[in-house]
Order: sequence, then structure tokens, then C-alpha cells
Amino acid sequence: MAGTKKTMDGNTATTHVAYAMSEVAAIYPITPSSNMGEVADEWSAEGRRNIFGQTLSVRQLQSEAGAAGAVHGSLVSGALTTTFTASQGLLLMIPNMYKIAGELLPGVFHVSARAIAAHALSIFGDHQDVMAARQTGFALICSSSVQECMDLALVAHLCAIEGSLPFLHFFDGFRTSHEVQKIEVIDYDDMARLVNREKLAEFRRKAMNPEHPELRGTAQNPDIYFQGRERSNPFYLALPGIVSQTMEKVGALTGRSYRLFDYVGAPEADRVVVAMGSACETIEEVVHHLNAAGEHVGLVKVRLYRPFDANAFLSSIPSSARKITVLDRTKEPGSLGEPLYTDVCTAFVEHGDAIPELFAGRYGLGSKEFRPVHVKAVFDNMNGSRRKFTVGIEDDVTGLSLPVSGPLSTTPEGTIQCRFWGMGADGTVGANKAAIKIIGDNTDLYVQAYFAYDSKKSGGITVSHLRFGKKPIQSTYLVDDADFIACHKANYVQIYDVLEGIKEGGTFLLNSPWNSAGELEENLPAAMRRTIAQKRVKLYNVDAIKIATSAGLGGRINMIMQTAFFRLSGVLPFKEAVELLKDSIRSEYGRKGEKIVQMNIGAVDLAVENLVAIDVPESWKEAADERAVDFRLGQQMPDYVREVIFPILRQKGDNVPVSAFAPDGAFPFSTSQYEKRGVAINVPEWIKENCIQCNHCSFVCPHATIRPFLATDEEMKEAPQSFETLPATGRELKGLHFRIQVYPLDCMGCGNCADV
Amino acid sequence: MAGTKKTMDGNTATTHVAYAMSEVAAIYPITPSSNMGEVADEWSAEGRRNIFGQTLSVRQLQSEAGAAGAVHGSLVSGALTTTFTASQGLLLMIPNMYKIAGELLPGVFHVSARAIAAHALSIFGDHQDVMAARQTGFALICSSSVQECMDLALVAHLCAIEGSLPFLHFFDGFRTSHEVQKIEVIDYDDMARLVNREKLAEFRRKAMNPEHPELRGTAQNPDIYFQGRERSNPFYLALPGIVSQTMEKVGALTGRSYRLFDYVGAPEADRVVVAMGSACETIEEVVHHLNAAGEHVGLVKVRLYRPFDANAFLSSIPSSARKITVLDRTKEPGSLGEPLYTDVCTAFVEHGDAIPELFAGRYGLGSKEFRPVHVKAVFDNMNGSRRKFTVGIEDDVTGLSLPVSGPLSTTPEGTIQCRFWGMGADGTVGANKAAIKIIGDNTDLYVQAYFAYDSKKSGGITVSHLRFGKKPIQSTYLVDDADFIACHKANYVQIYDVLEGIKEGGTFLLNSPWNSAGELEENLPAAMRRTIAQKRVKLYNVDAIKIATSAGLGGRINMIMQTAFFRLSGVLPFKEAVELLKDSIRSEYGRKGEKIVQMNIGAVDLAVENLVAIDVPESWKEAADERAVDFRLGQQMPDYVREVIFPILRQKGDNVPVSAFAPDGAFPFSTSQYEKRGVAINVPEWIKENCIQCNHCSFVCPHATIRPFLATDEEMKEAPQSFETLPATGRELKGLHFRIQVYPLDCMGCGNCADV
Repeated sequence: MAGTKKTMDGNTATTHVAYAMSEVAAIYPITPSSNMGEVADEWSAEGRRNIFGQTLSVRQLQSEAGAAGAVHGSLVSGALTTTFTASQGLLLMIPNMYKIAGELLPGVFHVSARAIAAHALSIFGDHQDVMAARQTGFALICSSSVQECMDLALVAHLCAIEGSLPFLHFFDGFRTSHEVQKIEVIDYDDMARLVNREKLAEFRRKAMNPEHPELRGTAQNPDIYFQGRERSNPFYLALPGIVSQTMEKVGALTGRSYRLFDYVGAPEADRVVVAMGSACETIEEVVHHLNAAGEHVGLVKVRLYRPFDANAFLSSIPSSARKITVLDRTKEPGSLGEPLYTDVCTAFVEHGDAIPELFAGRYGLGSKEFRPVHVKAVFDNMNGSRRKFTVGIEDDVTGLSLPVSGPLSTTPEGTIQCRFWGMGADGTVGANKAAIKIIGDNTDLYVQAYFAYDSKKSGGITVSHLRFGKKPIQSTYLVDDADFIACHKANYVQIYDVLEGIKEGGTFLLNSPWNSAGELEENLPAAMRRTIAQKRVKLYNVDAIKIATSAGLGGRINMIMQTAFFRLSGVLPFKEAVELLKDSIRSEYGRKGEKIVQMNIGAVDLAVENLVAIDVPESWKEAADERAVDFRLGQQMPDYVREVIFPILRQKGDNVPVSAFAPDGAFPFSTSQYEKRGVAINVPEWIKENCIQCNHCSFVCPHATIRPFLATDEEMKEAPQSFETLPATGRELKGLHFRIQVYPLDCMGCGNCADV
Repeated sequence: MAGTKKTMDGNTATTHVAYAMSEVAAIYPITPSSNMGEVADEWSAEGRRNIFGQTLSVRQLQSEAGAAGAVHGSLVSGALTTTFTASQGLLLMIPNMYKIAGELLPGVFHVSARAIAAHALSIFGDHQDVMAARQTGFALICSSSVQECMDLALVAHLCAIEGSLPFLHFFDGFRTSHEVQKIEVIDYDDMARLVNREKLAEFRRKAMNPEHPELRGTAQNPDIYFQGRERSNPFYLALPGIVSQTMEKVGALTGRSYRLFDYVGAPEADRVVVAMGSACETIEEVVHHLNAAGEHVGLVKVRLYRPFDANAFLSSIPSSARKITVLDRTKEPGSLGEPLYTDVCTAFVEHGDAIPELFAGRYGLGSKEFRPVHVKAVFDNMNGSRRKFTVGIEDDVTGLSLPVSGPLSTTPEGTIQCRFWGMGADGTVGANKAAIKIIGDNTDLYVQAYFAYDSKKSGGITVSHLRFGKKPIQSTYLVDDADFIACHKANYVQIYDVLEGIKEGGTFLLNSPWNSAGELEENLPAAMRRTIAQKRVKLYNVDAIKIATSAGLGGRINMIMQTAFFRLSGVLPFKEAVELLKDSIRSEYGRKGEKIVQMNIGAVDLAVENLVAIDVPESWKEAADERAVDFRLGQQMPDYVREVIFPILRQKGDNVPVSAFAPDGAFPFSTSQYEKRGVAINVPEWIKENCIQCNHCSFVCPHATIRPFLATDEEMKEAPQSFETLPATGRELKGLHFRIQVYPLDCMGCGNCADV
């Protein structure tokens, strides 16, 4: 059966199943799981029905501890119950998880796996949270992609009922939870047919009921607690078989087959990697690439992590494998090795025969990029002797990190890769989400989108990574060798390495007021001009702010940039794209009124008219480095700022080595003074003539961008000419010179000063 | 240096050190850690000084989560901080533990390791809680005995400062936390000399301070979180060395040496057990016993569990060892094996050479007894092929449990072992604590005491297990082959197997009104009489209730029974013992006034006079089983009650097999009706003549022991003669017969009925 195809992220795919298969959701949203709870709540409010014909009862508790307690209570009362969480939220659920497992209750927790706050907090993805719950007695099942979120969430819910044990279904926070892919959606009627109704009825019968009361939650003494704790063994022994069979049933329905451990790669592989989560997608891509180049390598994807079926694991590995690397996306300081690795060691010891050479690697903490080059480094390392390593960073302290060679492109041929530089709240991300939906829903193309934000939210930087192609897209890493790059904010060209990795002959779309080669020559850094000319990049400019203003859209440039993207990328015939864009405007903005719709439609037409193709002068190939346009002019930067803070601000934090950081996570103060972001489109200007020296403008400025000064005659002697002043008013200030000084680069453009 | 010797439990030994080495304790008491917090609070209130000359600042928070947060905050502000917890309490601390470790803060958590509530709650000891925190980045160090609590708590505090990492120091809940032993106490001045003052000053310098502010607790993005997480590696790499050296320093001070992993047993052992916690004491006892019998076995005691130093571990094992069993006192359902076992597997895989045959056993959950027979079963099992097992229970469901042969006595020769059956709140436990203190503090004897309670507290059963001997006592299990058994409550002889395991020629002291062989013949079950006669048990009776009443002590029989114990046990010359007893009465009861003191001293003298030696009739050897005196007369017991509840009530719950329990921990209702405890010394009697039928007596009875009935003429026809009634008063009850029926076996003797 080929299901309906839809474009969605991992959280939504998961919620699609969780909603269908649950009666109650007790939630307390936490990043990056939040939108699972939000979507479920929204669907419930809209009256969507689960497979039992009910709307899901969604309840928000006071914390994750409360949510877990409510899940437990709800399950004991006979309702199929779910929750969504991550990170510290999951940690707060641990006590109740032991209870839920101990009482054999078929709850399902969906976890967008996330790092845990240690030396620092991180809202990003790894398996530290999930691994902190691996001892609770929950079954753990892992999805590596958005499609798997749909498929394996269903396996989890079905097996929880069938096996009478709770499941923790997890997938990588952000990388999978927020990655948008076109996937096949499983129909609710099909799901309903797979439920073991007898087991479900048994679960209902066991519910707390005053008609046939039972005593639960007893306190047991040394005489019997141990026996009771062993009594549930048969359920754990049976579970791998149940999961296997359920995977087959779901596979028969969807055509997508899963096993407890899935092997991909050369049948006679000499080197094999064992991994779990989104990295599997990238590794698989590289495995195919390396095997095509004559190597013999493979990958074991761990699906069911608990109960860990050693036999299934061992038989998934080709007997030819002499070297195995286990990759863990977690860290347990002081342990001999991370959990998946120690499990693998144990499985081999128990197996008894000749044990392959085992390597252990740690990668991807806090969503650290894990790219094809890193996978290659892992395979290459098996030809050496470094048994334990990290990969993806430069560890110049304990020297654990693997050396990494130059870039490696393993994305399937024909995949179009795009990168968009935007500013938080400028509409770039929303426009890209709309674009990917338009393309996904109206073509046969596979699509993928991932959005990287910094933590400054509104006004911060956003980078959108979009891929389109005729083959499924497994590239679970950021776009590097881009076919198309757009920069939605002009001054980013001076701050960031916007064109990094652009392909030979790629396209660069810039939003700036610089509509001619001459203006661009003045404003683009020499390095960028060289790249454009040397790589024969097709260069386009559109003055989107001017167009948006004239179309009555204020600063909202998203529709203009989206139109330009469709014009230039060629993913869709442009005429068709314009129609679809206009349709999407009508459905998106329809409820805001016809005027908004017309303004946006107008912007689409204006964008086409005002898109300027730039003739790149041959001379740019040799553009000489001028004195860098440095927004931090006149600032003497301490070493620490230059070597640590500055690269981070320039989106080059991946390159900062381990030694740059304090061991206890501490940072020096007062570094934001060096960060002149220049994000405001309009900045205040002091109009001397109108000033009554009330200082209100300074008072309301939230970023201390506007500051009043008083200067003495003495000080004025050294003032530059442009330092204009007024005689200070007020008797006690007689003889002093008053001035409002504005720091335009710190301004956020909020307009408070003008308002007041 | 030989320190002062004192008799104390593991919690107090630990607190002695924690108090000395800390400035702040943020607590939230939880069994079995509570008295660490309580003792610390008491000492603080008394003005005791730590090694810095301060009193410890003890603060109770609103939960363990709050306590952990306060510990974190206090450490960040530069104060050496500790806390005490266990079980779910520790689980609530996990999120903060990641932070404390991530920020390299030298906090020390003292954990009386306890089971976690799963199918049922248990307040008793195992390592489930500690193992749930092993991934947090804390160092984990384990004490196996009360003396080690003192020694290794100090190692933990010293190394936390020196290594700049937090420690979790743990020991088995109840078995070690509440076991009383005579140990050497380390002097505060000696401790102070061992502190690394430079490292301490460094810690102080790093404290949060507005004079030199630093930024902590940042949120980090994918670009730098991983690097920061790796930055602390050197601290973990250095820690095993630091712990080793500190153990040497503490050893030089105390004469007691510890290593990261301590091996005991045959230098050429073929079979070795690896274990952690109080079981090590018992295993060591058995190892010596087996080696004395010509076997070649050994034990590795794990001291520093995290960071796990694989080289230190491997080099602790004799190269002759071909078979190794790893014992884990925890359970992680669905895992391939418990944590210590998987660590050992990993260590051997990494070692690379021929791997010994590895066995994995689970034992002692929820303080399940782990006795010499079980240890022997573990060593015997290495001659077979069962690679994974449980021991200490009968698992007739998954068949994992090892068969266990008959009793095995490995307690060092000359050790006097005593068991006391008492009733909660009857003073037995208090008296035994006093006795052990008297003996410990006034002789050269080693002493050990352990008190087993059921969960009914006041009115429940208590069994005190005391040992005295010239050699150190490592028997971390209940007394089985007793030299002396006392039963402080007469009807226990009919309910419990009081004399189980008594030695040939042992002594049995009974408190009962049965002062003659004839009365005893009528009241002691035949099985007990046969045991007494066949094993030539010296039988004594004392009517302690009568004596206590005549001495004005009401039901408080403790002083009488204690005196009789000293008279009969011969641990001390009796005259000296009486003097010491009277001294202890003066110090214990002095503040309650001279009258109380004199009453108790009178009781001592009366006890001596009224202790009756019974001439055991030869005929008891052949005593025939009469119809069992069954307190549950006339009750038709369901199978479940007979096979599960009844053995539990008779203190035979250890024998109930796994299959007897529901997999999800549920119990049927209404089983307490079969539990006729008969604990009241005085029970109500209905005095017909005084009754005004107000029913107040029934109304106030908290155990429904007193119930009013109305009978019709019809019903009265079948009533027995003793069923006396009154004509019911009240017009609407005319013609009915009124009676108050008392169920003496349910009565707790609270006296509410008489009061009202």
C-alpha cells in the first residue's frame, strides 16, 4: 500500500501516530518536543478522532514530573496514554518510569532526544537524556528519520499493548524532530486494524475499578521484593519477538521493512559501524559512496535498543566483519565507555567466539554536525589503532578527536541543495517552509528542510537548509556544497562566510540596495567577490526592502525572496510556481482579509520585475583584500574574544578547539560589547534642533543604544567636528555641552525611541 | 595510629566525616539515609565544630530536588557542601548532579543505597538508585562496612577537593547504614591535616563573586557544546590516581589500606567474584572458609566504581583466574546485563587477551538476604555453565535462580550470635542497642548488631541480631545459627519459627507467664519442644510482664529481658554487667528523675531473682504434633492467603517463590482478615452489667475489634451458651437481643475503649 505523501517534520510524524493510538496525553512541553504536545492539543481542539473514534484528551501538568505521574495514573485507570518530552524533562519522569514499567503498563513516551545541561545547557539533540532512562525498564526504540518516526512510533504503540510494557520512542532532537521531509503517512484505519484487541481488552480489564478492587503500589520488605522484581522477566524476554513481528506487520502495510537491527552495506564488509539515530542516514549515504568506490563497509542501525537482543544484534553483523566501531551520541564521564559500546562489548563476550576488533566513538553531542567527512574518518580510523575517539571536534586537550580530511559530498546526484541566510522573525524560515510544502505537495520530488537558529531569536540569525531531489534524501546534516544560496540581509555579507561551499556555477541571490555591479563591488568583501567570479556564480540582487515597503508590507520581505527563489532555482516551472505561490498566499493570509492577500500577490509580481541579474566583472577574480570592513572598529579585542567569541559570532564556532573553553563551563563577562550586530533596518538619528534634552529616548532604549553625554569645554577641544552639541539646559549644568550619542550597530530597530 | 573505638552504625560513621569536612548540608531526609541528616542537625545544634572550626549549616529543603539545587548553589558560592539521600530522593537530584559535575564542583553526596519503587516500593537496600545516577559525571565510591563508611567517606571528601569533581559515596541501605559495629573513629584534627589546602583555596577563589564576575550556566549551541563537554576529560583521567594516593594517605593514618579494587583470597585463585557493597564482607568470610577447605577462590571488592579504572581492575585479578562472576545488586530490565557486569565485559574486551569465562549474577534486591550459602552457590556455579543467574530467591518462572545447599556457617569461631524476637515499641531494640554499647565500650570484643523490622512499626515484629567476638565480624547477614535466642513475647512461639537455626546446646530465653515445664508443655508447639530437647537447648523463662508491672514499669519489659540476657549469655562477667547496666540506667533515665531510675534498677534485681531455669523433660524429644494452635481458627483460607500471605506473616516470605506474585505487583484485597496478630497484652472484656448500649466503645476502636450486634429470637436459637445478650434498649429495637462482641486477636491494646 502506498500511503498519502505529506511534507512534515519528525515531531508531527510522531504525533500523527501518538494521537491515533492514545486516549490521553499528559504533557509538559519542552524543546525540542514542544510541538508534539502543541500539535496534539491543536488537533484535539479541532475534534480530530483517534482510532477509537475519540478526541485525544490533552492535559498540561505543572512540570514533567507531574506529567509522568498523570501518565501513570491514567494508565492504571485503563486509558492508553502518551506523553512528549526531552532532556531534563525526561529526567524528571524517571521515578514514575520505574513505576510504569514495574506495573507493566503500556504507556508510550515520545522523546525528541536532547542534551542535558552540564557545564552548559543545550537545547539541541543527542542521547544523553534517553540514556539516563535506559535502566527504568522501558523498552527503547529509535527512529533515524522522519519517515521512521511515523513507522516506528506505530510499532511502539502496537507493541506496548501487545507486550504489556511501556515504550520510549526516541529520535534526534532538532535533526529529526524539526527536519521537514516528504513522507508517507499511515492511515488511521490501517493502524486500527493492527491493534491486538485481545491484549487491549486485557489491559482494560486490569484497570482500577471499585467493582473488582486490587491493591497496587504496596511497600514490600526484604522477604518478597526481589521475587516480585523478577516476576516480570517473561515480558522482557518476549518483547523482542513481539517487536519483530509487529515490524513485519507494519512493513506488510507500508512496504517499508524494519528489523531489530538493520544492516546496510556490503554483504562481505570488513568494517562495520553500529549506530542509532539520525546519524544512520548519513552513515548509510557514506557507506554506499565508499562501497561504490571499492571499499567493503557496512552499518548496523539499532532499532530496538531495550530490550537489547544480543542474538539479533550479532546475527545482523556480516561474519566477514573484523573491525567494528560503535558510535554513541552521548557521554558518561568516568565510564569505561558509552552505553551502546559497552552493550556491544558484552554481546560479543557472551557470544564467546573470536571477538572483532572494537572501536568506540563519541559524536554529535548537542547536535554537533556529523557529516560525511566524519563518517569517512570513522571508517578510515578502523585501519589504524585508535580504539577510542571523538569525532566532529578538534580535541587538543585529551587528543581524542579523529583527524578529518577535506569535504566529501555524498548527497545523491541530482539533489538540489539550497541555503538561505535570514534574520530571526524576517519571515525567511516561514517562506522556506511554504516553499518546501509547495514543492513537496506538487511534485514527485523528495524534499528536505532544516532550519538552524542561533539563540537570539527575533533579530538573530537563521540559516535554512533545503534539498530537493528525485532520490530519497538521507543527508541529515547541513547544506555545505550548495547549488543555491540566498542572503536575505545585506550586511551578513560582511559578517558571515555566506558563500561557503557554494558549487561551481551555483546561484547567489542577495537582498540589498546594491542593484549594480559597481555598488556591489563597493560593498561585497573581496573574498566573496573572488568566490563569485572564480566559481562563476550566477549573481542576482533584489532590493526586497524597497519592494516590500512600496507594496505596503513594511519589513516583511519573505514573499519577495520566495518568489525570487522560485524564479532562479528552477525546481518548478516558474509560471506554475507563481500560481502555487499565489494559492498559498490565499490560503495562508485569507483569514487576514483580502487586502493583505492582494498586497502579497502584488509583492510576487514586483519581485519578478525587480530581480536584477548582475554581470560579474572579470576583475573580481583578482579582487584584492581591502582593509576588512570590521564592525568592531576601534575596539581593542582581547585574545579570548578574538579566538573564541568572535568565531562563534561569525558562525565558525565548530572550528573552536576544546582547549578554548574553561573546564567548568565558565565564560568571561562583558563580551557582548564586541558584538556589533547591526540588525536594525532603521536606526535612530539625533535631530539636534528638536531636542529638549528630556532623555526619554535614552531611558526607553532596551539596548543602551542611545546615551546622553555632557562634555566640558576642555573635552570639547578634542572632539571631532561631527561631534555636534547643544548647550546643556538646566541651571546646574550651565557651561556644559549636551549630546545624544547613538550606537547604530547595537540598535534592534524596535522604534521605542521614536514612539516616546 | 589507633583511633578511638566507638560503637555506631554506618550512617553515623559517615556523618562523622561529612560533618567534619563540610560547611553546608542541604538535606531532605529519606529512609534509610534520614539519620545522617538528623545526626548532622543534632550535632550542629549542639555546636560541634567541623575541621574549619565552624558549625555545619544544615538546611532542610522542600524536596530532594530542592536539596540538590541548594547543594549546587552553595558549591558555586564556594562552600564545601554535602547532602544525604537515597532511592527516589537521589533520582530527583539527577538533573542537578549533571550540573554539579559539569561545573567541576567538589560536592559529596552520601547515599545509603536503596531500591526503587517499581512493581512495589521498598525502603530497603540495593544499588538501583546509585546505578540510576552513574552516568551523571559524579565519581562513585562504595563502602562495604561501617568502618569503611568512616574511611572512604573521608577519601571521598578529600578527593572531591583535590580532584575538583563531585563524589557520590554509597553503602548498602539498612545493611550498612543501620548495622551497628565497633569501629575506629578518625579524629577531626587528623582529617584536617589531609586536606589539600591549595586546591581548597582554588575552589574558594572560583566562587561566585561580584568583584570578579564570571558567566556560568550558559546555553550553548551545536557549534561549541560538544567541545565544552570534552573539556573536563583531564579531571576524570586524573581522578583514579588521586583516589589511589588519598587512600594511601588515609591508610598511613589509620593503618587500614584500600585500593581502587581490593583483592582478597587465594593468590592462585581459579574462580573470582567481583562485587561491591556489604556483600563483600560475607563473600570474604566465605572465601576464607572455602580456601581453608582447599579451594582456590577470591574476591575483588570494587571501591571506586566511577571513574572505572580498567587497568587497576584487571591488575587486581590474579592471572590464574579462569572464571569470574560479577555480582550486581541491581536490576535493569531489558539490558544485556547489569552495569558492573557490562563494565567488566568491556574491560576484558579492551584488554584484548584471553577472556576468562564470565558469569553474571543478580542478588540482594531490596535487602534480600545474601548469606554464606548463597556465596557458596555462586562459587559452585562457576563449575557449571549457567552464565546468568539470580541468587537468594526461588525463581520458578524464568528459572534463573541458583540452587542453594543446606546452611553454611562461616562466622569466625568464638563469635557469639544472638537473636531477639520482640514487638515494635516494646523496648527490645532499644535494650539491645544499649547492650551492644555496654559490651562494645567495655570490652575488647568486636560487636555487631542489626535490627530487622516489619512495616507495622509499633505492635509489629522486631528481630534483633547481635554478634560478639574476638575477631572482626564480617557477617553482613542475619543471625541463623544462634547461640542465644530470646523471645520477648509469649505468643510468638505459636506464630513464628522462633528457634530456627539454634545451635546444639544453645540458650533460649522466653518471656511468658509459663514458669514451669508443665505450663510450657501446654503452650509450646510440639516442634519447638522437640528442638529444645533434641538440641539440648538450655531453656529459661522469665515472667517479665509480671515483674515489670510489680516494679511499676507497666508493659516496659526491656530492662528485665536485658538483665536476663546478660545473666545467661556470659558475654561479660555478670556482676560487672549488672554494674554497667545500672550505670547505663542512670545515664539513660537520669533526666527523667530518680524515681524512674530506681524503678529500673529495681527491675534489674527482680529479673535476676525471677529468672527460672526449666528442666526440659526427656519426653519432649518425642513430642507429637498436636493440632496446630492456629490463631486463624474457623477461617477458611483461600489458597493465595495460605501460600503467599500466610508465609509472609510467619516471617517465611523468603521462601515464597517468584511465581506466587502477580507480574504487575498487584495484590488481592481483604487479606488482613486472616491476620490475627494477638499483640495486645490487655484486651477489652464486655461487662454486660455495666453496659448502657451507647456503642461508644465500638465507635472509638480503631481496629474494629469491638462490634455491637443485634440478634433476633430466631438467631438466638442457634447461639452458643456463652453468647450472652442484653435486651436491646430503644423502642424501635424492642424484642431484639444486644451484644458487644470483642475480637481479642485483632486488638492492639490501645485502651481507647476503656478511656471512653
